Amino acid sequence: MNIIIIGGSDAGISAGLQAIELCPDAQVTLLVADAYPNFSICGLPFYLSGEVAHWKQLAHRTAADLQAAGLNVLERTMATRIFPKDQVVQAAGPDGPLRLPYDRLLIATGARSRTPPIKGLDTPGVFLLRWMDDARQLQQFIENQHVQSAAIIGGGYIGMEMADALTKRGIQVSLLEYQEHVLTTLDASLGKLVEGHLKDQGIKLVTRCTVQAITPSDAGCLIQTDSHSLHADLVLVATGSQPEVALAKDIGLPLGEQGAIRVTQKMETALKGIYAAGDCVQTWHRLLQQHVYLPLGSTAHKQGRVAGENMVGGERLFQGSLGTQVVKIFDLVVGRTGLKEQEAYEAGYAPMSLDVLADDHKAYYPGATPITLRITADWKSGKLLGAQLAGSYRAEISKRIDIFAAALYEGLTVEALNDLDLSYTPPLSSPWDPVQVAAQAWSKAQRSMNVRNS
Amino acid sequence: MNIIIIGGSDAGISAGLQAIELCPDAQVTLLVADAYPNFSICGLPFYLSGEVAHWKQLAHRTAADLQAAGLNVLERTMATRIFPKDQVVQAAGPDGPLRLPYDRLLIATGARSRTPPIKGLDTPGVFLLRWMDDARQLQQFIENQHVQSAAIIGGGYIGMEMADALTKRGIQVSLLEYQEHVLTTLDASLGKLVEGHLKDQGIKLVTRCTVQAITPSDAGCLIQTDSHSLHADLVLVATGSQPEVALAKDIGLPLGEQGAIRVTQKMETALKGIYAAGDCVQTWHRLLQQHVYLPLGSTAHKQGRVAGENMVGGERLFQGSLGTQVVKIFDLVVGRTGLKEQEAYEAGYAPMSLDVLADDHKAYYPGATPITLRITADWKSGKLLGAQLAGSYRAEISKRIDIFAAALYEGLTVEALNDLDLSYTPPLSSPWDPVQVAAQAWSKAQRSMNVRNS
Repeated sequence: MNIIIIGGSDAGISAGLQAIELCPDAQVTLLVADAYPNFSICGLPFYLSGEVAHWKQLAHRTAADLQAAGLNVLERTMATRIFPKDQVVQAAGPDGPLRLPYDRLLIATGARSRTPPIKGLDTPGVFLLRWMDDARQLQQFIENQHVQSAAIIGGGYIGMEMADALTKRGIQVSLLEYQEHVLTTLDASLGKLVEGHLKDQGIKLVTRCTVQAITPSDAGCLIQTDSHSLHADLVLVATGSQPEVALAKDIGLPLGEQGAIRVTQKMETALKGIYAAGDCVQTWHRLLQQHVYLPLGSTAHKQGRVAGENMVGGERLFQGSLGTQVVKIFDLVVGRTGLKEQEAYEAGYAPMSLDVLADDHKAYYPGATPITLRITADWKSGKLLGAQLAGSYRAEISKRIDIFAAALYEGLTVEALNDLDLSYTPPLSSPWDPVQVAAQAWSKAQRSMNVRNS
Repeated sequence: MNIIIIGGSDAGISAGLQAIELCPDAQVTLLVADAYPNFSICGLPFYLSGEVAHWKQLAHRTAADLQAAGLNVLERTMATRIFPKDQVVQAAGPDGPLRLPYDRLLIATGARSRTPPIKGLDTPGVFLLRWMDDARQLQQFIENQHVQSAAIIGGGYIGMEMADALTKRGIQVSLLEYQEHVLTTLDASLGKLVEGHLKDQGIKLVTRCTVQAITPSDAGCLIQTDSHSLHADLVLVATGSQPEVALAKDIGLPLGEQGAIRVTQKMETALKGIYAAGDCVQTWHRLLQQHVYLPLGSTAHKQGRVAGENMVGGERLFQGSLGTQVVKIFDLVVGRTGLKEQEAYEAGYAPMSLDVLADDHKAYYPGATPITLRITADWKSGKLLGAQLAGSYRAEISKRIDIFAAALYEGLTVEALNDLDLSYTPPLSSPWDPVQVAAQAWSKAQRSMNVRNS
């Protein structure tokens, strides 16, 4: 069995490792466009903050690890064309063109940074951040140009992490967000909470702000928005990503959500023997029971593993994403899973959301801090639809989000959260975990709602 | 509706609050034997360590809070007899005897410390630790007698926490455990790990040690075991608890596991209108699908809430315990949920257990520490049966245990853990959470097992 994988990031590597794990006789070859196979894209902000001393530390596994696992990794090798009938991939490697036959092919080409309609994105000092090369260029620019001010366009996850990272380096950060609130995957109440935290850390935050043009100026870049203009030594454009599908399009593979490759839950494309996974594909949403575009590293790993299993004869289904995400912003951790209120409405539910404050552990034990928990659920059926949490770095926010994610996976009601036998010791929780305190508050509100409506 | 609740700790208070929440017209009276309603028994070690400045902080709610919630709390009022036919409870209060009629009665009398067959338990300087009065006497003794050495008999959860607490106060602690390892709710590999940690902290640990007698001596207490003898200023006997069932026995209520009151999943006793919950009852085990005796504060809260709902006309079932427990021992946190290997064997499964090490978050981000994860599952079906975790205080051990608890609640297989959409950011996890890293290692071991057996 000859397996070719185009892409050496999360989905590609996971697929390769799983295929060889289940079928040690498989020949697995990975084509990696740059020289950084299996690097942690999610780690780039922490390299740029200075928390990670050397970029080489960002490798999940070294090339030697991958080799030892039995994967044949071709670095600086760009797939240029697929010939489905011949079952061959054409590629350009460091030593010239290659023709690589395959029995099974995985397209794991990932995504690239979305470039918004702003004039002057080619102005020196304007950067995107997606690949290791982007990060190293940014790092060099910050060091060589003695960057003192930065404007970040986009208040999403990367925008948050980079605001944190650049502030840690002593750079004054302005954050420009098009929407009414940052982190639009959260409802407004949590978005506002994050905004307060950003301002406390000295970030100059402007929301509802459309950037129109960037021009070079004596003082770095001049950024013109619909409301004001500002100077910054550095501009980082962090407005999301779009699937990298040129190769797939070229062979006529049908595209779905936001132009991502259509796949089944087995991660099969429309062409037999060709699979796709990761940021280049549409993602099955477990709650919505439909495909969405929701590119995430954790999802790419899962889809890759499923594809790897199925390429060697498995029958595994990708069980779906819940859009679970978490981000650390200075000392605040914010996470979410499932649907936010508007998404729940649009999906036909009767959502009711409630924000609850509960201490992360018993108040009598030192160091207790409040967690904000927002539960969204259907007020008719009580079905849990989503949860959003914010609290201190040390408040186990991310794994509490995961309790909700596990409950959503199984389609539990809010009330059923109270039946979970969660762990308790006073330094780490309460007899009712904050997750359950919030569930009980939601149930109480649901009862009032039902009384009003009966 | 007139509800009498005997007991003002976790189960009693939860039941009362839930009953009045669902049925605001109910008259709910709680009989509390001491003057400490709704105090956190689990908090006593942290009061004795000095981490909690004043014992009054240990109240989950003050008497005023309970009053405001609509509960009628009678302190220092000991129920002395129940008359089921007359639906009356007889009690001795501070102002004399009382006769209290009821429509529904909840017995939530809790447990008391088990006293092992050791001679001389009445020697001055020998203590039990269960109630606030115990804790205050212990506190006074430590202060007045300038205690410098202590022997703890019993290496369970309280023994661990008190070894930590007394060491924090500068007291030299000897820990004497009857079994081969401490924390017998864990398998030996985790028990050994805890023992190493205790020794690192200067605790003198002796396992497989039967204490035979305690006698007064010039240097405090002389403790004689089957292997050696030692002196200690203070002896704490922490060998577990047994249900407090005198009142229940008196009216002929059938007893079950370890002499605890037999109840249904609705928390009903054999007598109509009389419910029981908390440490005085047997507990439905969700995995074993049978009753066990498993007294825990978190369980008492759940059972109390179920009883409260059903006493005012509800039809709720207690969904069962998984024996989820966690303890902080100095900077180590150890937790468990579900079945340990031997329990799984005895329940008829074909358990296979695997210990896996995984970093709590990406190694490139500062502060990563290894977590030991032990998964027990059925190697034939792949069904998850239990998990045991140990790691640093800051490694989100307790909420990772809860991910396993949520999975066990739903009867997931080990492989299904990989389908959970868990949160990821490099400072807090990995694209595959340690929970999933362990699951994948277990699945790999299962495949080898199946190859060997096929």
